[in-house]
Amino acid sequence: MTKKVLSYAVRTAKSPLGPLEITRRDPRPDDVVLEILYCGVCHSDLHQARNDWGFSHYPLVPGHEIIGRVRAVGSEVSKFKVGEYAAIGCMVDACRDCDPCKKGLEQYCVKGCTQTYNGYDRHDHQPTYGGYSQCIVASEAFVLKIPPGMNLKSAAPLLCAGITTWSPLRHWNVGEGSKVAVIGLGGLGHMAIKLARALGAEVTLFTRSPGKADDARRLGAHNVVLSTDPGQMESVWGAFELIIDTVPYEHDINPYIMTLQVDGTLVFVGQLGNINPTANTVAMIMGRRALAGSAIGGIAETQELLDFCGEHGITAEVEMIRIQDINEAWVRLENSDVKYRFVIDMDTLKIP
Amino acid sequence: MTKKVLSYAVRTAKSPLGPLEITRRDPRPDDVVLEILYCGVCHSDLHQARNDWGFSHYPLVPGHEIIGRVRAVGSEVSKFKVGEYAAIGCMVDACRDCDPCKKGLEQYCVKGCTQTYNGYDRHDHQPTYGGYSQCIVASEAFVLKIPPGMNLKSAAPLLCAGITTWSPLRHWNVGEGSKVAVIGLGGLGHMAIKLARALGAEVTLFTRSPGKADDARRLGAHNVVLSTDPGQMESVWGAFELIIDTVPYEHDINPYIMTLQVDGTLVFVGQLGNINPTANTVAMIMGRRALAGSAIGGIAETQELLDFCGEHGITAEVEMIRIQDINEAWVRLENSDVKYRFVIDMDTLKIP
Repeated sequence: MTKKVLSYAVRTAKSPLGPLEITRRDPRPDDVVLEILYCGVCHSDLHQARNDWGFSHYPLVPGHEIIGRVRAVGSEVSKFKVGEYAAIGCMVDACRDCDPCKKGLEQYCVKGCTQTYNGYDRHDHQPTYGGYSQCIVASEAFVLKIPPGMNLKSAAPLLCAGITTWSPLRHWNVGEGSKVAVIGLGGLGHMAIKLARALGAEVTLFTRSPGKADDARRLGAHNVVLSTDPGQMESVWGAFELIIDTVPYEHDINPYIMTLQVDGTLVFVGQLGNINPTANTVAMIMGRRALAGSAIGGIAETQELLDFCGEHGITAEVEMIRIQDINEAWVRLENSDVKYRFVIDMDTLKIP
Repeated sequence: MTKKVLSYAVRTAKSPLGPLEITRRDPRPDDVVLEILYCGVCHSDLHQARNDWGFSHYPLVPGHEIIGRVRAVGSEVSKFKVGEYAAIGCMVDACRDCDPCKKGLEQYCVKGCTQTYNGYDRHDHQPTYGGYSQCIVASEAFVLKIPPGMNLKSAAPLLCAGITTWSPLRHWNVGEGSKVAVIGLGGLGHMAIKLARALGAEVTLFTRSPGKADDARRLGAHNVVLSTDPGQMESVWGAFELIIDTVPYEHDINPYIMTLQVDGTLVFVGQLGNINPTANTVAMIMGRRALAGSAIGGIAETQELLDFCGEHGITAEVEMIRIQDINEAWVRLENSDVKYRFVIDMDTLKIP
């Protein structure tokens, strides 16, 4: 038995988003059924809708920054009660048995975690559909609790933009007095600034846009460096322990490597693809500097982030939209015309 | 007052090595004067002789794998006595005051360490000349003690090939049961295998040459993977915590990134220059994998290596040559025709 619900989907890599009726399974014993209230709009929604990464299947219902209300629970669910608010991020399952899974790194599951959308359920092998829909069903092990009092609309982006920047900040031990830089002030960048600042770091934004300096400072950055100005770049040579590179397209990282301390790391969180222009090893070898990548975060770490944000009053800066405006929002997202994350009010998804 | 000594030097980026009389300073209070007995031949000797890195000055006397006997000591020297054996590696000084220096990472001195050759002394601003000479003078703080009973001829390469592979093994915490791979079986690669094995690691060699397998196993490798065989490469996907990449020229690292575990690191120790073909971030992001660089090692760490090698009976595999054969040896080195390090018997350096 399954339930029919409305969604917004793309039917091919070239189609716009439009209404589509999909089915959701009846809850298994460990499942939670969420009525979706808000869903954030992530740049990877576009990439996957357009098959930029080559593994999309259609129809495709995007959305992995999901805030909802529990509508039903399976017989064995213990963490959630009907009526509570809850959240789902980028994963709805993993093998739960490999080394990374056992370490709470489900995002690096050696068998591949189950993506919230554009994946396949591990049990019934049905396609997974994301948060641009009225309802979603997932195992409670992959459903997050929302701290009391959190603004639900602006909390949605914590589930991807938030955890994607939180995880490297925690993994590379950012804390009081750490010297951290963030490249790019978008959905991920603005969260990286807020979170690094709340962790006690001294935070610098690298940007190509002088106009972003005031906003960066308002969000928590102590310093802003114009990456197009060689003099400003040289003034921060050797300055940073960690650089979180949120830029989602190809860009020259060599000038940034020079700004790492000995043993510093530049971590890619935004761009999947070739490093182009290529990196030169000299500054890496001459300071034991590293380039690394990081993907979202584990489930326990995501809960830690939500709890931290609850304590520190942190959510994203969002612009609310109706689901009917999503195609226009995607165009604006491509043009970096959003401060700093679109969130869809899913209450606007009615029978068209 | 200075002392005139014989050396082998290049006079321009295009000249062969030939005899040259140079001067060595009289010992300062903290100086040790070494009569040079043996000097290893490092690939970087060629690079610097030919100005491949763009900062060579001439005449240039190469050599930074130096084993000698103490001939004289300055008035304040406490670590060494006349007649003892001692060693000098790639550095003869550093600022001794910056953060890296205070942490024992003199190789990453923010003001630049003083190279054993092709550098300038920090006090008298005279050029530094390396180990292809009869004698060398350096501050005792940069002179190493040789454990009793060590084979002096085959110990020379520990001072560069040894420490360059030891330092990343130690920094990335290789120990009992660690899964370590080494790319390339040359001067650095053969030391990496011996040292990783002695640290208790499970060691794999990546090579393009099936003919190197037996030798690799003799040196301590548990496994040999033919990097030109995609099936063999796929069989080790996700296998290694640390890969030490000793290849001194451009090569495709993407197939190796796939063989790193989650949180694994590939560390460049051989190639200074562009990563070409470029690296792709997907495997880095999807497993929090890193690319890093590492340069030689600090002085305390070099002493630790020598002591470890003394305890474990480890030295390099060497082919002894006369200084008069050095130009021919350089040609063979360029053709990878050496197992696995040339060492010059400096007793052959007499008045020509």
